[in-house]
Amino acid sequence: MSADLAHLGYHGLYTPDPPATLQYFVDLLGMDIVAVEGDSTYLRACGDYESWSLQVIRADHAGSAWVSWRTAGPEALQRRISWLESNGHSGHWVPRDRGIGPSYEFADPDGHVFRLYYETERYQGQRPAVPTGFQRYAGRGANVRRLDHVNLLARDVRSCRRFWEEGFGLRTYEIVGSESQEVAAWMSSSIQGHELIYTQERTTANGRLHHFAYVVDSREEVLRAAEIFADARVRIEAGPSRHTAIQGFYLYTREPGGNRIEVAHGGYLVFAPDSEPYVWNAEEWKAKPGWGAPLPPEFHLYGTPDVS
Amino acid sequence: MSADLAHLGYHGLYTPDPPATLQYFVDLLGMDIVAVEGDSTYLRACGDYESWSLQVIRADHAGSAWVSWRTAGPEALQRRISWLESNGHSGHWVPRDRGIGPSYEFADPDGHVFRLYYETERYQGQRPAVPTGFQRYAGRGANVRRLDHVNLLARDVRSCRRFWEEGFGLRTYEIVGSESQEVAAWMSSSIQGHELIYTQERTTANGRLHHFAYVVDSREEVLRAAEIFADARVRIEAGPSRHTAIQGFYLYTREPGGNRIEVAHGGYLVFAPDSEPYVWNAEEWKAKPGWGAPLPPEFHLYGTPDVS
Amino acid sequence: MSADLAHLGYHGLYTPDPPATLQYFVDLLGMDIVAVEGDSTYLRACGDYESWSLQVIRADHAGSAWVSWRTAGPEALQRRISWLESNGHSGHWVPRDRGIGPSYEFADPDGHVFRLYYETERYQGQRPAVPTGFQRYAGRGANVRRLDHVNLLARDVRSCRRFWEEGFGLRTYEIVGSESQEVAAWMSSSIQGHELIYTQERTTANGRLHHFAYVVDSREEVLRAAEIFADARVRIEAGPSRHTAIQGFYLYTREPGGNRIEVAHGGYLVFAPDSEPYVWNAEEWKAKPGWGAPLPPEFHLYGTPDVS
Amino acid sequence: MSADLAHLGYHGLYTPDPPATLQYFVDLLGMDIVAVEGDSTYLRACGDYESWSLQVIRADHAGSAWVSWRTAGPEALQRRISWLESNGHSGHWVPRDRGIGPSYEFADPDGHVFRLYYETERYQGQRPAVPTGFQRYAGRGANVRRLDHVNLLARDVRSCRRFWEEGFGLRTYEIVGSESQEVAAWMSSSIQGHELIYTQERTTANGRLHHFAYVVDSREEVLRAAEIFADARVRIEAGPSRHTAIQGFYLYTREPGGNRIEVAHGGYLVFAPDSEPYVWNAEEWKAKPGWGAPLPPEFHLYGTPDVS
Repeated sequence: MSADLAHLGYHGLYTPDPPATLQYFVDLLGMDIVAVEGDSTYLRACGDYESWSLQVIRADHAGSAWVSWRTAGPEALQRRISWLESNGHSGHWVPRDRGIGPSYEFADPDGHVFRLYYETERYQGQRPAVPTGFQRYAGRGANVRRLDHVNLLARDVRSCRRFWEEGFGLRTYEIVGSESQEVAAWMSSSIQGHELIYTQERTTANGRLHHFAYVVDSREEVLRAAEIFADARVRIEAGPSRHTAIQGFYLYTREPGGNRIEVAHGGYLVFAPDSEPYVWNAEEWKAKPGWGAPLPPEFHLYGTPDVS
Repeated sequence: MSADLAHLGYHGLYTPDPPATLQYFVDLLGMDIVAVEGDSTYLRACGDYESWSLQVIRADHAGSAWVSWRTAGPEALQRRISWLESNGHSGHWVPRDRGIGPSYEFADPDGHVFRLYYETERYQGQRPAVPTGFQRYAGRGANVRRLDHVNLLARDVRSCRRFWEEGFGLRTYEIVGSESQEVAAWMSSSIQGHELIYTQERTTANGRLHHFAYVVDSREEVLRAAEIFADARVRIEAGPSRHTAIQGFYLYTREPGGNRIEVAHGGYLVFAPDSEPYVWNAEEWKAKPGWGAPLPPEFHLYGTPDVS
Repeated sequence: MSADLAHLGYHGLYTPDPPATLQYFVDLLGMDIVAVEGDSTYLRACGDYESWSLQVIRADHAGSAWVSWRTAGPEALQRRISWLESNGHSGHWVPRDRGIGPSYEFADPDGHVFRLYYETERYQGQRPAVPTGFQRYAGRGANVRRLDHVNLLARDVRSCRRFWEEGFGLRTYEIVGSESQEVAAWMSSSIQGHELIYTQERTTANGRLHHFAYVVDSREEVLRAAEIFADARVRIEAGPSRHTAIQGFYLYTREPGGNRIEVAHGGYLVFAPDSEPYVWNAEEWKAKPGWGAPLPPEFHLYGTPDVS
Repeated sequence: MSADLAHLGYHGLYTPDPPATLQYFVDLLGMDIVAVEGDSTYLRACGDYESWSLQVIRADHAGSAWVSWRTAGPEALQRRISWLESNGHSGHWVPRDRGIGPSYEFADPDGHVFRLYYETERYQGQRPAVPTGFQRYAGRGANVRRLDHVNLLARDVRSCRRFWEEGFGLRTYEIVGSESQEVAAWMSSSIQGHELIYTQERTTANGRLHHFAYVVDSREEVLRAAEIFADARVRIEAGPSRHTAIQGFYLYTREPGGNRIEVAHGGYLVFAPDSEPYVWNAEEWKAKPGWGAPLPPEFHLYGTPDVS
């Protein structure tokens, strides 16, 4: 368990086509718009305790604008910034935005933008019947509950993995590769099998997004989401099926701006405090034990910004 | 199998509060309005092959306006009308309405209005991805697919049951009661365990509705519907749980006009062509074997129009 | 609806390795052995109302021994035999076997063995809690409930389809192909989307089996079955995913004798009495609208007996 | 997050009827016996990473023998023992048993026996297909994966809650009651909504067990478990339905020795590091917002040992 990082926080997404992207997030994923300002639209999912969680930003290309972590407290935030600054990863402060932040922005070794913050505001909108929930459940589209994990592409997976292990105490649950070539790593700040995934960048580009994954309540809801996407004529890239790594149930589409989005459910929890990462060697990984459909070749190649 | 009745058809529902009733059917059940005319609003569910299936009608009380059956063909329609007229149940013709009918309207022994029709039009609206479906799946609210069954209250359950067995060839799959007092019967025109249910009317009123049931794709969707209703502050009368009879999974609420509505999934199919009705005696029925929550007392008393 | 055929009945399966085949059916599918006699073992699934439903027979090759239909009554049986004998498809009687039959055995145009019977005995074994069920639910392996449908390979799909339409009143719900080349047809005796499927035989062999499909209670149980098969080291040929035709959820493995077996759930019901078969042309079919994983090439080639 | 406690560990259960209790755990819950020695039988569930997790012990009464926590490391174990000994809760060491321990045994303020341990052995038995799992999935009975949470009765709920908060850093997610009378508390060492629950003891007895809860993979599997229990003629005390607190899906039966056992799925995760316990006052709690069946009166009274 990371002592200092609590969970993935609010994220930013670039899109060249905000109206279409927003229609996808609102009508198909079931998220809500909470504010619009200039080129940015702020959204939330019904399972978010914070006031908002996604900023869709008009840009000339798709991609991740940033990924963030909420820290366990203000001292934890300060400790992580000290580590960054002592280790050559200095960043800068981004001011408070609609209840979240200030945030400290920096880059991982591949150049992806990250933010750390602690201060936040709780959502105070339409209440659910049970007061321990956060928002009335509307039942629209795929009804995603919250951001589940993010998968980034990296030219050097191992250096990114070590950056988070050494600097932030993330735990790594699975690795694919050998000493000489590590091609994927699944990491988490908690007992959940994945929050942050790095997979091999196969181009010379850097800082690219593989996908953002949003969670639904059951595998049945992933199947149901497939019908919603299909009937909305959104192409399904892969799934519904089950990943070998972390064993999560998946469905991949691309939002109209080009970013790959997963609707996900499940994946194991890791209770053992002394759990070692499971390291897949190439043959074992290729054999894909267990069940689950093969992934199409593009799954391993496409990312945003698209450089094909 | 009834040779002459194909399936439950379009139905009519009275409500004293059409705007609230429509909001329930559209936002919470996920049905679509296809036309409005005077005091009537025409709706459909996404799994209906016909152009519409429900007419919500302003009235000074709630209740069933009519239940209908589509016949297996034009001759089947004529045969059933002949039987009605030869057996003292003459009715009258209702003209074609928005693609459905003409319909022959008559009453069952308890005075509930029924209609028979054969002519209909197929829905031609927004197409789903797979062309064997009927309508794009929108994923709104509980997303009911179609009317599954109807439960009517009757002062004399047995005479109603025999009316449909003898006049229409419906099969009865379960009966509760004894020779002297039959209190419930589950009937169907097909291998589905229930399309038409009669249960004991405990007042002196007649022609009352117990509930209309709409089907969703899985038990998971019934559970999901419970959250939608709860968060919309619609009181849940019973469920989600499982009925002993027919073994269907249920959830009961009342639409704002007062009519009881079930969101349902499952119930057994009857394949044996020589299946006899299962007759529950009072003690066995009371013992409620198997699993499933007890039903509240009001479940057996309340119907529409409300006469309490 | 077929007036004379009620439902698929007991079937026979050839296997060169009965012990391994039986272990698959008992431990993984969750069926029960009810009797053993010579080279035959008799099994049942917990949702069968008849005393048994599958005869596993030692043979030098895998394949379907026969598929049967229970008729709607004794006259229906006689009518169908008369049609067969008047149309050049005469067969012979097979004596009553452990409560089922006598059966009239004949061949379809591709040479698959079929049987017709009406007489049967109800299962009288371990009772479930709810008396309208047939057998205590043991919860072993995939827990299949009953045979759902059978898929046969045919050199001339159309002639097989017409044989069942004209001779038995089966309804055809979907067809793939053109006037000159029909490659698949889905047929049923009831409102269920498929009981009997013919797909194109691509070798010169005849009378071959594509697969038998057994039904479970939910899509969740199909996913669960995948884990059971994977952990038992049974290779998964395809799925879990959804078929375009009939829209059923599927999982394919091969029992150790070589026969392809599907664990299935769902598929649409056809309520319209005047429903026409949906005819897919080659391009539309190839485009595979909707969602669902692509099937591996072997899915269209392999059958039993294996002639590769 | 507790820095020192990692998760609930192996537990002990007293039963006056070990053969019947074991049949329940093996055939109905789907656990495996790993060893028998004298009056003790050692079991495991397929999702346990440790070699065993439950010791069923013959006794003249039912009840919890002990509940344990695995600590985050050897220093964490020592720190917690120091706290116990410095705060008047000294215990004693229990030797290593079949790969687990040594364990430090002590009592909570109500007298329930607890153990702390760090050393353990990983299960090395029949491997699943995917190597990140722990055991082949057999698919037997309800197929529970692991112990999910434990609910103890306490005469003074608040003092028990504070004992774990102050001494062990457990987080409390929900409380029912007022300053003067706290009647229930849900606590956890992680982001999971509940691991340890205390509810009001209404007799003068102490150290009693309310229930042990084992988790399955989906709500569908809880529904499926209900059918397994019902058909095995095990009385269902409550459910399947949803709890208001923590929002988990539940099913309660009693194993033949008398201990209440829950088959559970779900319950929320708490991501906010600064989440405060939700405190229900009496009226709000009584109103039971949301959905879920009412619990029978005995649910609040019965515990083991039974003192009625």
